[in-house]
Amino acid sequence: MSINKIFFYILFLSSLATNLLSQSNKNLQQYNSIADTIIKTAMGEWKGYKILDELCKIGPRLSGSENSYKAIYWAEKKMKELGFDSVWLQPVMVPHWVRGNEESAVINSSKFFKGRKLNISAYGGSIGTEIKNGISAEIIEVKSYKELHERKDEVKGKIVFYNEPFDQTLTNAFAGYGKNVVYRSGGAIEAAKYGAVAVLVRSVTSKNDNITHVGMMRYNDSIPKIPSAAVGIQDAIFLSDALKKESGLKINLKLSCKTFPDTLSYNVIGEIRGTEFPNEIVVVGGHFDSWDKGVGAHDDATGCIHALETVDLFKRLNIKPKRTIRCVFFINEENGVRGGIEYGKWADSSATEKHVALIESDAGGFTPRGFTADCDSSVLKKINSWLPILNKASIYFVNAGGSGVDVSRTRSAKARLGFIPDSQRYMDVHHSDNDVFEAVHPREFELGTAAIAILAYLISEEGL
Amino acid sequence: MSINKIFFYILFLSSLATNLLSQSNKNLQQYNSIADTIIKTAMGEWKGYKILDELCKIGPRLSGSENSYKAIYWAEKKMKELGFDSVWLQPVMVPHWVRGNEESAVINSSKFFKGRKLNISAYGGSIGTEIKNGISAEIIEVKSYKELHERKDEVKGKIVFYNEPFDQTLTNAFAGYGKNVVYRSGGAIEAAKYGAVAVLVRSVTSKNDNITHVGMMRYNDSIPKIPSAAVGIQDAIFLSDALKKESGLKINLKLSCKTFPDTLSYNVIGEIRGTEFPNEIVVVGGHFDSWDKGVGAHDDATGCIHALETVDLFKRLNIKPKRTIRCVFFINEENGVRGGIEYGKWADSSATEKHVALIESDAGGFTPRGFTADCDSSVLKKINSWLPILNKASIYFVNAGGSGVDVSRTRSAKARLGFIPDSQRYMDVHHSDNDVFEAVHPREFELGTAAIAILAYLISEEGL
Repeated sequence: MSINKIFFYILFLSSLATNLLSQSNKNLQQYNSIADTIIKTAMGEWKGYKILDELCKIGPRLSGSENSYKAIYWAEKKMKELGFDSVWLQPVMVPHWVRGNEESAVINSSKFFKGRKLNISAYGGSIGTEIKNGISAEIIEVKSYKELHERKDEVKGKIVFYNEPFDQTLTNAFAGYGKNVVYRSGGAIEAAKYGAVAVLVRSVTSKNDNITHVGMMRYNDSIPKIPSAAVGIQDAIFLSDALKKESGLKINLKLSCKTFPDTLSYNVIGEIRGTEFPNEIVVVGGHFDSWDKGVGAHDDATGCIHALETVDLFKRLNIKPKRTIRCVFFINEENGVRGGIEYGKWADSSATEKHVALIESDAGGFTPRGFTADCDSSVLKKINSWLPILNKASIYFVNAGGSGVDVSRTRSAKARLGFIPDSQRYMDVHHSDNDVFEAVHPREFELGTAAIAILAYLISEEGL
Repeated sequence: MSINKIFFYILFLSSLATNLLSQSNKNLQQYNSIADTIIKTAMGEWKGYKILDELCKIGPRLSGSENSYKAIYWAEKKMKELGFDSVWLQPVMVPHWVRGNEESAVINSSKFFKGRKLNISAYGGSIGTEIKNGISAEIIEVKSYKELHERKDEVKGKIVFYNEPFDQTLTNAFAGYGKNVVYRSGGAIEAAKYGAVAVLVRSVTSKNDNITHVGMMRYNDSIPKIPSAAVGIQDAIFLSDALKKESGLKINLKLSCKTFPDTLSYNVIGEIRGTEFPNEIVVVGGHFDSWDKGVGAHDDATGCIHALETVDLFKRLNIKPKRTIRCVFFINEENGVRGGIEYGKWADSSATEKHVALIESDAGGFTPRGFTADCDSSVLKKINSWLPILNKASIYFVNAGGSGVDVSRTRSAKARLGFIPDSQRYMDVHHSDNDVFEAVHPREFELGTAAIAILAYLISEEGL
């Protein structure tokens, strides 16, 4: 934040505090007391953490997979068991991509490295290698799109290997991710323009291990579709070194992944009704699908259970919210956002309901730091006036900014908010076998639940 | 923080921002630019993290132990290799307690549980069991001092088992620690008043594993000294359940620990000289001793290497500080604070040097959140005016409060500051076999180094 920005931000905060102080003492006392109780209950009982364990035991939840349906029915049952006022499934068609059984990359023509396998995984949406016995081709390594464009005449018939290291210098790990994820998402398109036959991409992760970190890739219908896969960091380093020793080595790549026709899936929705304004809705949500590596614990089982436990905390503590608190598990954020789009369409066109705010948790189950808010300045001012209360749950800022992929699709709401926990470890686990229940710390996770529950409660009581 | 407090704090901050803006733009630009460079270098190179690995490989560093001397000489050599302007050892006598080879607790009289071993470790400073074949006695479990006092007539001849669970509801993990550590530190005194023969204490930790979390205990010379040991959490739960099934079961306790005469040790000190005010000192430090479990990675190798890398960053980046930046590895924080006391005496009585500030890092190598400052309000105001710059390294507050055990002993300085990283995972590893290099996250750790280095730089340029 620049000096000027922080200066005005601070002036702005001081006017908000005045505003807050002008509220009745009774409300303030009640809000502080309920915030304390929410924190104490979440941190003391770890109920959400135990439910998270149950969910993670089902396994990964890729859209359209058998596991995703098991998880959806588990979630519906769980919300009913917890006594939510209403629980329902919202149908939505989702893409159905399947990894298949075969994935391999082996150096098959080389003086020094013949037979060396590389740890790879197809990116979501990639076509398979199709040709019997896979694709065998020379590797060309590039560090950037700039280098790819400069060396475009060398690319034809080859496998392009994007090998830009993760930028650890950026304090927000999502910024490092944002810098390199372009090779994962668009690398196949750019390489195919110059006649490449496949692409391999150094896994986009802050961790120096050798597992693959997967995720969505795109095609452009006017450009040939070529297979695209992630390589583990250590094997990316190995391959780069090998190419220094011996240019022209060839790899045989086999991918059996395939896209099937769209299939029916569901958002899972549950709520407790508001006592004064039941048709005014405060959504708390995360996305319920995951990649098929690990179990999608931080991405985004934690976000879903943050939301589930928020509603359950109202039940457990017998807090009767003025407005309806609705928990939404959005399906298909990872490769289509179909759940978020469907929910937004439905919410924005409702004749009876008005969405006040939607809060998304999709940045992991780590210690809370703040919220970002997509709303107008008067709403931001109001939310900021609650910082002294949110601070109890380690929330130190509410900044203007993006919210979350799913909730961003409900445009009629006064605010769309994103939960911002500490980012340092997120890209270690993201979209990989590292993203397991054991990577979630109970205290960090439950403090996140508390932060979100307090914000939902304040919105429910005060409106926006 | 109360509403009133935050209101005044915000008004206060806004006046500080004005103050900051009135500084010359040239200085501000320079400070921002150097802060960016410090962050980029620390996060991008992980040099401190690699040095931390070297230190951790030496092993634990209990005061007076052979390992502690290995580490001291390694540190002296390292500071010289890094090209610090001066490096020296400051002699100080330290306590010398040795765990010895034998530690066991076995249920030796019971209908159901005979032969069951409990995972225990003597607390630092405890006497051994001395009697040949150890102490065999009945166990009496109490949940609190209150219960001990109420049941004082039942205690004589028994082993008191303090079994108060860690309070997870407190958002600051140090607060949960503070609540229960009283049984570790004073439990032997209180129990001995009523004739107990030994005490066992449920390990003070936020993690539900079964390893022991050790630490210092105290005696009172006017009360009989009895052995005192930590029990792993799972065994504490087992023992409590066993006592419900069968009161009166007996345990045989053997501890071979022993206190030897005080022995000579050293603070390790290295510095780079200030260009304008070389006799004005800014100390950055941590404590170099650890307990003899794990390797004392977070407690407090990270704090020491935060300090070491701070000085090294000035060297690497060719930043010439106006004031002298001195790195101090204090010995014996854990069981005597002799290093901190000795340094403070020396600093406070110096005829030639003036200490401006001391910054201690002794709360782990986790993501930065803030600093606490022990200083007068005008100094606090000045440090707070730098928040917009410190914010780059995830520092969101500088609050009045305690600093660190070691630096608190230098009273002549204008400010003593404590680095406050996120606390959630600290008590999982504290004083235990969990406190290993692998528990330190490189990005979290290096962001801590950057935060401390930026603060040291600003103090060096601006004074206090």
